[in-house]
Amino acid sequence: MAVGDVSMPQMHVVKGVKIGTAEAYVRYQNRRDLVIFEFSEGTQVAGVFTQNAFCAAPVHLSKAHLLAGNPRYLVINTGNANAGTGKIGMQNAEATCAKLAELANVKVTEILPFSTGVIGEQLPIERLVKGLQPALDNLNENAWLDAATGIMTTDTTPKGASEQFVLDGVTYTMTGISKGAGMIRPNMATMLSYVATDAPISRELVQLLLKETVNVSFNRITVDGDTSTNDSCIFAATGQAGGIEINSVNDARYSVVLGVLTRVMKRLAQLIVRDGEGATKFITVAVEGGANTQECCDIAYSIAHSPLVKTAIFASDPNWGRILAAIGYAGVPNLDVEKIQVWLDDVQICKDGGAAEDYTEEAGAHVMSQSEMTIRVDLGRGDAKDTVYTCDLSYDYVKINADYRS
Amino acid sequence: MAVGDVSMPQMHVVKGVKIGTAEAYVRYQNRRDLVIFEFSEGTQVAGVFTQNAFCAAPVHLSKAHLLAGNPRYLVINTGNANAGTGKIGMQNAEATCAKLAELANVKVTEILPFSTGVIGEQLPIERLVKGLQPALDNLNENAWLDAATGIMTTDTTPKGASEQFVLDGVTYTMTGISKGAGMIRPNMATMLSYVATDAPISRELVQLLLKETVNVSFNRITVDGDTSTNDSCIFAATGQAGGIEINSVNDARYSVVLGVLTRVMKRLAQLIVRDGEGATKFITVAVEGGANTQECCDIAYSIAHSPLVKTAIFASDPNWGRILAAIGYAGVPNLDVEKIQVWLDDVQICKDGGAAEDYTEEAGAHVMSQSEMTIRVDLGRGDAKDTVYTCDLSYDYVKINADYRS
Repeated sequence: MAVGDVSMPQMHVVKGVKIGTAEAYVRYQNRRDLVIFEFSEGTQVAGVFTQNAFCAAPVHLSKAHLLAGNPRYLVINTGNANAGTGKIGMQNAEATCAKLAELANVKVTEILPFSTGVIGEQLPIERLVKGLQPALDNLNENAWLDAATGIMTTDTTPKGASEQFVLDGVTYTMTGISKGAGMIRPNMATMLSYVATDAPISRELVQLLLKETVNVSFNRITVDGDTSTNDSCIFAATGQAGGIEINSVNDARYSVVLGVLTRVMKRLAQLIVRDGEGATKFITVAVEGGANTQECCDIAYSIAHSPLVKTAIFASDPNWGRILAAIGYAGVPNLDVEKIQVWLDDVQICKDGGAAEDYTEEAGAHVMSQSEMTIRVDLGRGDAKDTVYTCDLSYDYVKINADYRS
Repeated sequence: MAVGDVSMPQMHVVKGVKIGTAEAYVRYQNRRDLVIFEFSEGTQVAGVFTQNAFCAAPVHLSKAHLLAGNPRYLVINTGNANAGTGKIGMQNAEATCAKLAELANVKVTEILPFSTGVIGEQLPIERLVKGLQPALDNLNENAWLDAATGIMTTDTTPKGASEQFVLDGVTYTMTGISKGAGMIRPNMATMLSYVATDAPISRELVQLLLKETVNVSFNRITVDGDTSTNDSCIFAATGQAGGIEINSVNDARYSVVLGVLTRVMKRLAQLIVRDGEGATKFITVAVEGGANTQECCDIAYSIAHSPLVKTAIFASDPNWGRILAAIGYAGVPNLDVEKIQVWLDDVQICKDGGAAEDYTEEAGAHVMSQSEMTIRVDLGRGDAKDTVYTCDLSYDYVKINADYRS
């Protein structure tokens, strides 16, 4: 179902990161649904979380624990989001952390909990807690694929990215996984991502790197415009491959790490779009020539969210009036439509706000028939630009979301 | 296809309004596609138009002509939106007005042009202009149904509302028509509405009445969140039924007219939702207990736009986690989720931010299985409220929008 090559790459080991998985029967039988990450002492961890006001109990708890210090363990279950679950939900998230803290002999605040799955049902806390020891028992460095599989909900494929890079003669690894297929799954909730490196990076820069790279990756994708109650992304730097700590953005090594992390995060984010519910096409929406980045982003999202643009792409119909309309209602003030150019890949469809003279439906339809394409818009009023990734809207999107619980 | 009773009511004649229609072959054969409204001298006319930056040539011209004085004629074609058509599009809109001005012996600025249909193609101006005399030739008071039919694009049914009311012993009529089935149709563009009364109302109050009633009707509906390049709504008061002009909001008759116009406009707006692309259900989203109207409106639209909520309703699945998530990502600051209540009709599904204790899936599914339902949200932080109308998202929405041009 997923669009393009979504195969798992070789998942390089990250020194200082061990992963354990177990079958805890949270919702389904015969599948790994509990994942534990163990970080070596001194690992620097940063997290970003959903902006949804209805954020889930484990999100509240993870945020609080992150403020308290440096986490040593992540515990993730799939099958149940522990969202919309009130006080009992919070007690269950706390109980999970308490039990793992006891088993692993760390402080409860050194554990970050995550849940994904059905909203509005209570966690089967007894089964979940029973799975913790088995997961701890099989902690090992080579379980990134197991982890990627163990956090899936209705994803059709596990999602991973991994790179190695050299700084001052030392080889470092950056490896990560993600899950998600709609911004919210059929009452699943939704996007999780965990990325780790064994490079030595200061806590401040780990946070900065995460913020910078999330903004060009997970904050630039959309399947259906719905934002989950559970979205979380964690970046950890163990420092276990050695070398001197990177603690300044002026350190030349910072730029290298930023480049690697950007590629890894973009890949993990784009894999979610490629596995988008019912997706048959992967679409890059690139807006340039803006007065500022925000207006480029607003227009890119307006196009990427438009059900009419997305159904036209599903039908390989170069229906450019829908793209113009989506630009027009993005709410950008004082837009001079006569300066706007629009391309489908290299085919210019709109010139100075009207149809391009040499445009033909055949040329447009050819681009639209591909499984990957770029919609490029030039606003003609500045140097700012931004890019958003999305997929088309197909029968299967409705089918998946309408049929899920029936 | 349309949801509920959408039949045309008796369309009462409005004194001072005559309507002529013709077959101009703009896009299709054997259908009325050209409509002319003639208003008696002294008619007060107000208009509201799309906010889309890519608004169509006739929208620009109608706005300019409205500023210049009181229109005597409206000329409307379907089949072609004259949007995204650049300078030639504007010349064509001007040529249509010029020819009608010549034939009807009025000033060109006394004519408002409207177009709806395909975006990005030039009007077949010769055929259009040839239809003007035949339309003028059959001007008559009893052609409201013909007009409602003559402005349809892919609407499945003509849309009308009509009421009579008595002020100081004089019987007045309020009659109107609308068209539209998505905020943008498969490259059609989209919503038009024309309402007239023979009550005597000052120009200032005609404008105020239109503004007030559009805000609770056409500005409170959504099918797919896409805003058209051509949306226009016109309200005209001919004064031809006699009586003393209403020129103050303190005049008791003003409240009566406001009430009648509100009902007529809401009906015309809701008919568009009932005929929404692929719609199988009509949904009222009512948000109350807000700190202000804007946040109620934002949350209502967030729910009404959510593809996940709309597909769940299509599937009669009381998937309340999706409603909570949509409330949570509406961007309302400092929302206390523990104060939020949600009902499906009279069934409380969410109490104090979690599942209501006595809620059962059976009760929720029963409400969801109906063709009409209300999602009611209480934010528990004030007295403001607002209501939005929408429909579900079905396979047919994708089918209609993906298949239209193939």
